[in-house]
Amino acid sequence: MFDMPTLTPGQYSLVYNMFSFTLASMLAAFAFFTLGRNRVAPKYRLSLLVSALVVGIAAYHYFRIFSSWEGAFTLVDGLYQSSGEPFNDAYRYVDWLLTVPLLLVELVLVLSLARDKSGPLLTKLVIAATAMIALGYPGEILNDTSMFSERGLWGLLSTIPFVYILYVLWGELGGAMGTQPPRVAVLFRNIRLLLVATWGFYPIAYMIPFFGLSGAGAEVALQVGYSIADVLAKAAYGVMIYAIARAKTDADGWSLESRSYAAASSGDGITAPATVNA
Amino acid sequence: MFDMPTLTPGQYSLVYNMFSFTLASMLAAFAFFTLGRNRVAPKYRLSLLVSALVVGIAAYHYFRIFSSWEGAFTLVDGLYQSSGEPFNDAYRYVDWLLTVPLLLVELVLVLSLARDKSGPLLTKLVIAATAMIALGYPGEILNDTSMFSERGLWGLLSTIPFVYILYVLWGELGGAMGTQPPRVAVLFRNIRLLLVATWGFYPIAYMIPFFGLSGAGAEVALQVGYSIADVLAKAAYGVMIYAIARAKTDADGWSLESRSYAAASSGDGITAPATVNA
Repeated sequence: MFDMPTLTPGQYSLVYNMFSFTLASMLAAFAFFTLGRNRVAPKYRLSLLVSALVVGIAAYHYFRIFSSWEGAFTLVDGLYQSSGEPFNDAYRYVDWLLTVPLLLVELVLVLSLARDKSGPLLTKLVIAATAMIALGYPGEILNDTSMFSERGLWGLLSTIPFVYILYVLWGELGGAMGTQPPRVAVLFRNIRLLLVATWGFYPIAYMIPFFGLSGAGAEVALQVGYSIADVLAKAAYGVMIYAIARAKTDADGWSLESRSYAAASSGDGITAPATVNA
Repeated sequence: MFDMPTLTPGQYSLVYNMFSFTLASMLAAFAFFTLGRNRVAPKYRLSLLVSALVVGIAAYHYFRIFSSWEGAFTLVDGLYQSSGEPFNDAYRYVDWLLTVPLLLVELVLVLSLARDKSGPLLTKLVIAATAMIALGYPGEILNDTSMFSERGLWGLLSTIPFVYILYVLWGELGGAMGTQPPRVAVLFRNIRLLLVATWGFYPIAYMIPFFGLSGAGAEVALQVGYSIADVLAKAAYGVMIYAIARAKTDADGWSLESRSYAAASSGDGITAPATVNA
């Protein structure tokens, strides 16, 4: 943790600029989800608000990670060498502890299932997500290089709740797609794939020491990989949540123009005063 | 106060990351309470606004505490040693002086009792909360290690308003639950338990010197304990206030969709102009 490898200016700058790119993306996503949440029907806005919290929390942590990266190196003879200050990678775990459960919350909320269904689903997924992160951390801070080590054991334990989350997403939540509009079902399948593809990066990163990879190249690849995975798993994922909310808003017959439901297509009998919607 | 114990990198980082976690949680809670307050009926929004103030004030203080912690240590020979700069724990008392009365205010406000009842309740609770913090501080800055000392005396004096607050929460405010919807009564019981469980940590922390505990382990346990207690007592407490506000909003028949009261289900006869709700 303390001894960062010596980096060339190109390597150092690549990570530096990826962190900056991620921070800018998270801040822009925060602005979009907060300012744009009134474009969907009221019942989907809580989901967009949670999306905003996720990217907001990530922006805070990338700001800290960025500063920590700067502090961990000094430029000596044209090379970036360890300054002796630690690069605090633990910010990532603190971030995940808060954001990973919230990512599942926004997905369940946007589907607006019946309360007796969404309540237990949320409880199960939040507990599993928290356990997944909490069980990974004790292994992360060990420097074992064999898969059959304490690090490997914690990684394995952390994988159990991860598999459980996938099981819920494909089983129980997948089954609920039958009652959703077709366009929502397609978007749900896509966001679920995005989730697996991006979340899948983190266990691979966790196993890097097992592959015998270390040094400057591995460190740079890891930080760049984390940045891309975070932008996709949080900002792009949130945009897909927004797309689902829009599709459901349309299906419900809620009009952005009149900010109310069209009399014909809405089942709950709420009509806007003196407004006719298509 | 000036001589911080020497910490291992693991101990230093644990506290550092807990402070960062708390700061991120408070900022996220601030965003949630401000952006989400229109999701409840207008009469409960002041309570959510007060929740936002509490976590906003706490975020400010944790930002300061974080910087003070960084400044109080220097990394020498792989260990974090006292830099000579003080770690300013007094930020906590300043924070509590502002936030503890407000935490009681948000609880009374969300119950939306009759004005002749809530007015005197607020006055009593705010005075008691302020007295509790103000009486604890003179003892906090003493280094007495015996319970029968000046520190012990101030602690005892501070306990009197604390017991009075519990008396009001269980007696007068508990009695008012008879007129609340059943779901609100359950949530009120839960939030009252959360309050006692988290506020109970502070007198225990105050008594640490009496148990003969000092040095690195005690300092780390204290700071981690404060962080967890603060997140629960302010952010999680605020989320429960939000849950109470939502439950009361539903019971009042206020609709998030039409932003008005349903004519049939609301007892106070407020109807939206020319809008028919199911």
